[in-house]
Amino acid sequence: MVGRKLTERLVKDGQLNGQAITRLVLHDVIQPEAPQASFEIAALASDFSQPGEAEKLIASRPDVIFHLAAIVSGEAEADLEKGYRINLDGTRFLFDAIRHVGDGYCPRLVFTSSIAVFGAPFPDAIGDEFFLTPLTSYGTQKAIGELLLADYTRRGFFDGIGIRLPTICVRPGKPNKAASGFFSSIIREPLSGQEAVLPVAEDVRHAHASPRSAVGFLMHAATLDTARLGPRRNLTMPSVSVTVAEQIESLRRIAGEKVAARIRREPDADIMRMVAGWPRRFDAGRAQSLGFRAETSFDEIIRLHIEDELAGKIAG
Amino acid sequence: MVGRKLTERLVKDGQLNGQAITRLVLHDVIQPEAPQASFEIAALASDFSQPGEAEKLIASRPDVIFHLAAIVSGEAEADLEKGYRINLDGTRFLFDAIRHVGDGYCPRLVFTSSIAVFGAPFPDAIGDEFFLTPLTSYGTQKAIGELLLADYTRRGFFDGIGIRLPTICVRPGKPNKAASGFFSSIIREPLSGQEAVLPVAEDVRHAHASPRSAVGFLMHAATLDTARLGPRRNLTMPSVSVTVAEQIESLRRIAGEKVAARIRREPDADIMRMVAGWPRRFDAGRAQSLGFRAETSFDEIIRLHIEDELAGKIAG
Repeated sequence: MVGRKLTERLVKDGQLNGQAITRLVLHDVIQPEAPQASFEIAALASDFSQPGEAEKLIASRPDVIFHLAAIVSGEAEADLEKGYRINLDGTRFLFDAIRHVGDGYCPRLVFTSSIAVFGAPFPDAIGDEFFLTPLTSYGTQKAIGELLLADYTRRGFFDGIGIRLPTICVRPGKPNKAASGFFSSIIREPLSGQEAVLPVAEDVRHAHASPRSAVGFLMHAATLDTARLGPRRNLTMPSVSVTVAEQIESLRRIAGEKVAARIRREPDADIMRMVAGWPRRFDAGRAQSLGFRAETSFDEIIRLHIEDELAGKIAG
Repeated sequence: MVGRKLTERLVKDGQLNGQAITRLVLHDVIQPEAPQASFEIAALASDFSQPGEAEKLIASRPDVIFHLAAIVSGEAEADLEKGYRINLDGTRFLFDAIRHVGDGYCPRLVFTSSIAVFGAPFPDAIGDEFFLTPLTSYGTQKAIGELLLADYTRRGFFDGIGIRLPTICVRPGKPNKAASGFFSSIIREPLSGQEAVLPVAEDVRHAHASPRSAVGFLMHAATLDTARLGPRRNLTMPSVSVTVAEQIESLRRIAGEKVAARIRREPDADIMRMVAGWPRRFDAGRAQSLGFRAETSFDEIIRLHIEDELAGKIAG
């Protein structure tokens, strides 16, 4: 989803950091859809965790590489070997393919990490120097990716930056089975006239940023002056920390009581237990001082969703 | 050196955690020397970064595994591929070999990590929740080993514990080319009648533990109740933080002015620059509360060296 929105943005802008985009290579394990654009777009499908595949992806020597590919959390937990193969070996093959060019080629590499690199117990707000103690294999693989990115950057193979995305809200599309899905669905479904299920208590606090912010993070990471980063190349992105009650208050304020009443409380002990181990708030001072910007209120997050996904229309 | 001293200790004790040792497998890339013991000792040489080799090492299903093998910092920096192959792939092959047994085999696995997982700038004392930002490939590989250890332990493949060794002082033997070598040689050489070179200023502060403590850390890690650890499986070991001036004062106090006068000041800009990026002090509260013990003064560290390596005799 973030990859698709990033592509839309690149196509719309036609340039990056003041330079016209001349060629875009899209890659996924299934054939990605290539939109119409003012520049050439190649769409490739392959399993980049197979030796030799990553080399093909960088054969055209892109100036900027966005590495978003990953097996998601649930699947990496269910299938240990697949998770390590895609999320660790795949990432390493990509990094090594760049290294092997060896003639001074040094692209900007933007790696999407995740707040899953953190594991409870946490301080009230997780600061920029808090340690990584992932409690999932996915979080472990992302944390390893961060370490490799920093080391390969230090050694001059590429100019890497890792960005830890908060939970993206409001995620467009259908409800999915992710345990975190309710954070979006309690906003998305009511706004389009559907009922949504809230499986946790309203005092649950979590950190969010809009899909538009996620794309903004990626674009900023691709263009900022990395000399300002020093050797610490992985950054927690800014986010809006709110309780579920505050999310619902925002919805009521923006869309009215009738819409907010479409949320049905149906506590789910499994989800409550999982969510209890998730971060509640981040102090993303470094990213903010480097110019990364998220929303400043949950109202803004809802308004962006209505604007970007609903063409301004709420189902009253 | 630590591996050899650990073997001596196991041979001397003949038991671990109240259980008689029945078999010890020593492994290194070159044939290790097997001492005489009351139990069977097998000495194996192989490159365990080659697929299939790790399986042979655990074929006898040891109850306790000490994983100390590593390419050292300088070599891992000079030869990127070798460092990643031995320190990352080798470690992963070992961990996967244990996982592949798959019939409930769940050995205690003690992994020696390093304070090289930390990179400047630091707080005055590095606490247990400070983040890992290695500034060498060696430190990166150790940090990745820590993450894998925690994930594989969480998933029940083994009962892992990673211990970050401080600088071991006084290291026995000849002076070596490690940049940190002077911390030991300014004590070791004068005590045996030789001149030593001090390449840094006397206000340089660093954290030390004796070889006897290092073996003690390993033994304690092999036997402690890991239920007390929870999911955070990697621990900074306790150490004595002293300035070089304090090291020299201790030497003078214990061995006299004539011995201390064998230190020649010869500033080395390269070493000074490297040392400026090293940790100065650790707050190892977690390890201490779990019963890990180092020396409490540098005097004690010198006395242990005189006792263990010099049979009590100082070259006056």
